[in-house]
Amino acid sequence: MEQRLSMVSLGVESLERASKFYAAMGFAPAGCSDEHIVFYQLKGIALALYPRDLLAEDAQVPAEGSGFSGITLAYNVREREEADRVLAQAKAAGGTVVKPAQEVFWGGYSGYFADPDGHLWEVCWNPFFPIAEDGSIIVPESLK
Amino acid sequence: MEQRLSMVSLGVESLERASKFYAAMGFAPAGCSDEHIVFYQLKGIALALYPRDLLAEDAQVPAEGSGFSGITLAYNVREREEADRVLAQAKAAGGTVVKPAQEVFWGGYSGYFADPDGHLWEVCWNPFFPIAEDGSIIVPESLK
Repeated sequence: MEQRLSMVSLGVESLERASKFYAAMGFAPAGCSDEHIVFYQLKGIALALYPRDLLAEDAQVPAEGSGFSGITLAYNVREREEADRVLAQAKAAGGTVVKPAQEVFWGGYSGYFADPDGHLWEVCWNPFFPIAEDGSIIVPESLK
Repeated sequence: MEQRLSMVSLGVESLERASKFYAAMGFAPAGCSDEHIVFYQLKGIALALYPRDLLAEDAQVPAEGSGFSGITLAYNVREREEADRVLAQAKAAGGTVVKPAQEVFWGGYSGYFADPDGHLWEVCWNPFFPIAEDGSIIVPESLK
């Protein structure tokens, strides 16, 4: 395996509701999206919205599931204050602010929102992980 | 929000077990990893392994959860036969082949493995989504 990830697929109850939410967050669907699946071109990877039951069916696993998914996504902001703005935007878009942005023990400033299907996004100002001009995250060799 | 994703964090039961699995899949941890968290530099984004209970605590949500997480990750391969090889590698590394690679209705060839914590990875040959030399996925404007 090369050290890469191609796509993150989020199972959703309503494709319309979820795609409206991500539109309000500023995400524009790729042209190949249709009424069955919505794709977004992120930097180097794809994000997909797909009905949750069909996503489980695709993996051939039971669709039942509840509680914490065990996976979180993170959006690192370029400026500390941007974390508050993105969380407010998520709330206005129909998401839920699960944790208001706050100083965290490792030295960053971070909060979480849940999208309409409960998928958790950390919105994070992390001064130790540089963000390149094109939005790429650079994982440092050391945190010192 | 810029149209990007910075990090995917996988909650794990044992950091040692999970990082051994990803090492066997060919992922090398970043230098800033330690006994509390493991980071991988992917193309433009980061992948993190973090104890599941602490990940839930970070988001201030209850850690309980079971069944389908509602999220899948995908690794797109460059050649069709590579899908079988990656699934076999995942099995040898201590993962589970949840769905052997097979032809799927949309014209690709795809299977799934679960890592030791049950996180689902689709291993997918998708002739409609080009893969750049550097591993970036290009979401097309049309599937025709």
